[in-house]
Amino acid sequence: MRIDLGFNPVPFDELQLRDRNVVVIDVLRASTTITVALSNGAREIIPVGSIESAVKISGSLFGEVTLRGGERNGKMIEGFNLGNSPAEYSESTVRGKSVIFCTTNGSVAMAKSRYARSLVIGSFVNLSTVVEALMEKKEDVLFLCAGRLNSQGQFSLEDAVCAGSMIHRLNEMDGLNPELSDSARAAVALHKAHGRSPLKLLKSTEHGMYLTEIGFAEDLKLCAAVDSVPVLPTMQGTSIKLRKANQEPIPTPPEQA
Amino acid sequence: MRIDLGFNPVPFDELQLRDRNVVVIDVLRASTTITVALSNGAREIIPVGSIESAVKISGSLFGEVTLRGGERNGKMIEGFNLGNSPAEYSESTVRGKSVIFCTTNGSVAMAKSRYARSLVIGSFVNLSTVVEALMEKKEDVLFLCAGRLNSQGQFSLEDAVCAGSMIHRLNEMDGLNPELSDSARAAVALHKAHGRSPLKLLKSTEHGMYLTEIGFAEDLKLCAAVDSVPVLPTMQGTSIKLRKANQEPIPTPPEQA
Repeated sequence: MRIDLGFNPVPFDELQLRDRNVVVIDVLRASTTITVALSNGAREIIPVGSIESAVKISGSLFGEVTLRGGERNGKMIEGFNLGNSPAEYSESTVRGKSVIFCTTNGSVAMAKSRYARSLVIGSFVNLSTVVEALMEKKEDVLFLCAGRLNSQGQFSLEDAVCAGSMIHRLNEMDGLNPELSDSARAAVALHKAHGRSPLKLLKSTEHGMYLTEIGFAEDLKLCAAVDSVPVLPTMQGTSIKLRKANQEPIPTPPEQA
Repeated sequence: MRIDLGFNPVPFDELQLRDRNVVVIDVLRASTTITVALSNGAREIIPVGSIESAVKISGSLFGEVTLRGGERNGKMIEGFNLGNSPAEYSESTVRGKSVIFCTTNGSVAMAKSRYARSLVIGSFVNLSTVVEALMEKKEDVLFLCAGRLNSQGQFSLEDAVCAGSMIHRLNEMDGLNPELSDSARAAVALHKAHGRSPLKLLKSTEHGMYLTEIGFAEDLKLCAAVDSVPVLPTMQGTSIKLRKANQEPIPTPPEQA
């Protein structure tokens, strides 16, 4: 089992990812929000890479069962129904609904990975559930951090630490002995340095401080709550749906031509 | 003083770097090789981003005082005089010579930074010299790691650890109190996890293992020898030349129109 990691999705091409098992990590906030929304009964999440795609797709869907959610610079997009705060995705709002989802970082990584061999959405709120699914599967995996695409370094410390916490758990597992890439080793070191208190970490990172500034301090608590939403969002066809932990194996799509 | 860091040069544009003080780190091996070459009396190093540029430029220079050096996949480029091993750049080979220098990762980062406000070449062999120059200057700085552009993650652990060792030293300095970006904080954590023994680190990283495989194990020892070549290569005009430590301040170019 080989574990690889990208600190942002930019170098990766949709075609390269076709044969990979991918875990997309966007702690603040896309991965967390999707996990919460599905846990609260949303039918599916359809991640898109641009506002244009969101508008195009929503034109062909039924208005009363479809919502548009997402953000630009952390704030709700004009004409959308929901922003990117997990607190907005309550059961009364999302139950039974399809959500077209467009964010600056996370949904870009997810849209790039849509044809991957398998795609799982990971964050602190479902950390152990993701780790258990990977342990069960025992296949090579690529952690794809969403990063901060609108910053020069395109790096997000909270995504790297969250991925590192998962890799650390896999690495400590008896008999698994995964081979780690340089970047996966780095993530483990970042987990050891900053993983003890996710809330303290989120309060200190660039994007965490930005979200606090624009009024989303409460979101940091939701996003830092390890294992508070123990479900496994996975790509199934063209949308992300829920698979309860240990219910069935992560689907491996049929051989793609 | 703000310290920022890029794990690879891909997201950065030449124009964005014009107002930045940049330290390019390519431990294995471009930064080390350039530092050794200049210390051994090379007149200047002209970093180029592609083999095409190298050929174009060398056509307009005098053959007997110009060498072409560099690598593709770690090996010497056909028609070049030298590869990218610091061991090749001995005094008898390089004294008084201009070297056109083209490598897969390091020279790309250097060519992108050629119009930066200032550009310093850093690695383990001149670690303290670089740190002292930055402490003296007390200006914002961007550490630009060369990374591994031909790998998917485009990340090189040894570059991140070396940059982290420098940032850690600046961070510990009395009265400096630099503000660190997420990526600069990550590099410090990587220094703490992996910086104790540079040689052990280099033997364990992806590129270090590759170089060992293709016969350059001895290079790892040269590249891991902290402060063994205490000089400061800086961009001066269009080429990299030597500034001895504490001899004169890093030149800040006149206001660019």
